[in-house]
Amino acid sequence: MARPARVRLIEVGPRDGLQNEPVPIPVETKLALVERLAAAGLPVVEAGSFVSARRVPQMAGSAELYRRLKRRPGTAYPALVPNLQGLAAALDAGVTEAALFISASEGFSQRNIACSMAESLVRLAPVAGEAANHRVRLRGYVSCVLGCPYDGAVAPETVAEMAERLLDLGCDEVSLGDTIGIGTADGVRRLLEAVARRIPRERIAMHFHDTYGQGVANVLTSLDEGIAAFDCSVAGLGGCPFAAGATGNVATEDVLYLLDGLGIETGIDLRSVAETGAWISAQLGRDVASRAGRALLS
Amino acid sequence: MARPARVRLIEVGPRDGLQNEPVPIPVETKLALVERLAAAGLPVVEAGSFVSARRVPQMAGSAELYRRLKRRPGTAYPALVPNLQGLAAALDAGVTEAALFISASEGFSQRNIACSMAESLVRLAPVAGEAANHRVRLRGYVSCVLGCPYDGAVAPETVAEMAERLLDLGCDEVSLGDTIGIGTADGVRRLLEAVARRIPRERIAMHFHDTYGQGVANVLTSLDEGIAAFDCSVAGLGGCPFAAGATGNVATEDVLYLLDGLGIETGIDLRSVAETGAWISAQLGRDVASRAGRALLS
Repeated sequence: MARPARVRLIEVGPRDGLQNEPVPIPVETKLALVERLAAAGLPVVEAGSFVSARRVPQMAGSAELYRRLKRRPGTAYPALVPNLQGLAAALDAGVTEAALFISASEGFSQRNIACSMAESLVRLAPVAGEAANHRVRLRGYVSCVLGCPYDGAVAPETVAEMAERLLDLGCDEVSLGDTIGIGTADGVRRLLEAVARRIPRERIAMHFHDTYGQGVANVLTSLDEGIAAFDCSVAGLGGCPFAAGATGNVATEDVLYLLDGLGIETGIDLRSVAETGAWISAQLGRDVASRAGRALLS
Repeated sequence: MARPARVRLIEVGPRDGLQNEPVPIPVETKLALVERLAAAGLPVVEAGSFVSARRVPQMAGSAELYRRLKRRPGTAYPALVPNLQGLAAALDAGVTEAALFISASEGFSQRNIACSMAESLVRLAPVAGEAANHRVRLRGYVSCVLGCPYDGAVAPETVAEMAERLLDLGCDEVSLGDTIGIGTADGVRRLLEAVARRIPRERIAMHFHDTYGQGVANVLTSLDEGIAAFDCSVAGLGGCPFAAGATGNVATEDVLYLLDGLGIETGIDLRSVAETGAWISAQLGRDVASRAGRALLS
């Protein structure tokens, strides 16, 4: 399996990174974050979500954010949408790319969205149909692909099945999320081998959390498995609701440092991302969780 | 190249990790650290150094530490020695394994030990001879193997040459240090290919710093190159004198999490190491820099 010559990074900091922040972040700050990341060359910046403001209050300003967003030509700004109501709100705010999510474990599905995995697919079908009617490109997330905080082990074949279903619904790409950051190299390889028997590797993105320090190593393993798209979060924003104080998403800067070192093209300026990471971390009153970010700016 | 079934971890936290700490750490604390790490199953714990107390005041208590150390059968407790005077002091304190150090770059050699690389080997010859006379096992360190803060790029062939010289001097094992944590996977692979043309892979240990977040990924690459010995530091103790605020040695807990995940034996109890990492970090008044350590104890 040849490593890709070019990789697409999907920046999820403004959504996945910020969604669990306890203190409200002004829309101006989020907007500046999204625009800085796009200016640094990130080709995809997930900028918000249209979920219940009661369940995820931090994302309540997403409509305003999308309305005010100055879009760069060629940059995609997907929003997470859970249902028809969310999609309608997203469309109303000018969203042109959306992301749907399901789980690869029953325990997580029940606790996160209060339905079974099978039911979640049934519920998403009309959302996907409506998105297609509006020519909204769709991305799919599968969570808990390497383990579940409730059910433990997750079979690679189950992930492959769920990923295929998302493509059937009309998703262009499926992001496989190690939601609790539990996976190591061989598990990643086994997972990718199983999923790639059902869907093309170029439709797969990997989404790692650095909870146990394995994020960059798991990206490396995925590259060696021919994967060319990765979700990541500036300054390692985000945490793990299942492990208080634990690290969040793999940091964009750390992944970029790896890709630059391997001579893989991204079109992204590492220093600009690091500066944005230092800036948003200062806004949140916390240390930069990206090691490359800290070292580059020291 | 087959991955090893068993890996030996060399814990360097008490020496490499603590040596640059600004506030004096009581010998009792260092002693407890060394003994806790040995009890957790670390087969090698580098416990101190016999260098100039003026240059490295934090290591001034090493003689007392070695005198008071309760040794576990089967555990090795090497000390760093720079010269004959240091070796004599180490022998006097009961040290039975020692480590010598050289650099793979002229700039670092001059600034760190004020002599050329060639001269450093000449100076170490009598130290190695005296160590042999006392049946002291020797380990060798080569620093800056993937780049130098002064000279930039370092040729893999130069590292190979220096590693071979250390074996010629009587070292059992050579630890190749990415002192500034600059390397990525392909550089590690090229380095190991070059060094393995000169010395057997079982004589090579790798020593990574996590400055740019690449530590665990570089361990993974080295495993895939057949390397079975790694230096690491509990709680990621240590910093980088060339990048203020940057991360230190790759954390023992993060490496162990990888090895456990790959089914590679170490004989080390990850939870005990994580608890020791939390304890020493509290003593130093800092956060645990190991991601796996934080997650495991959350």
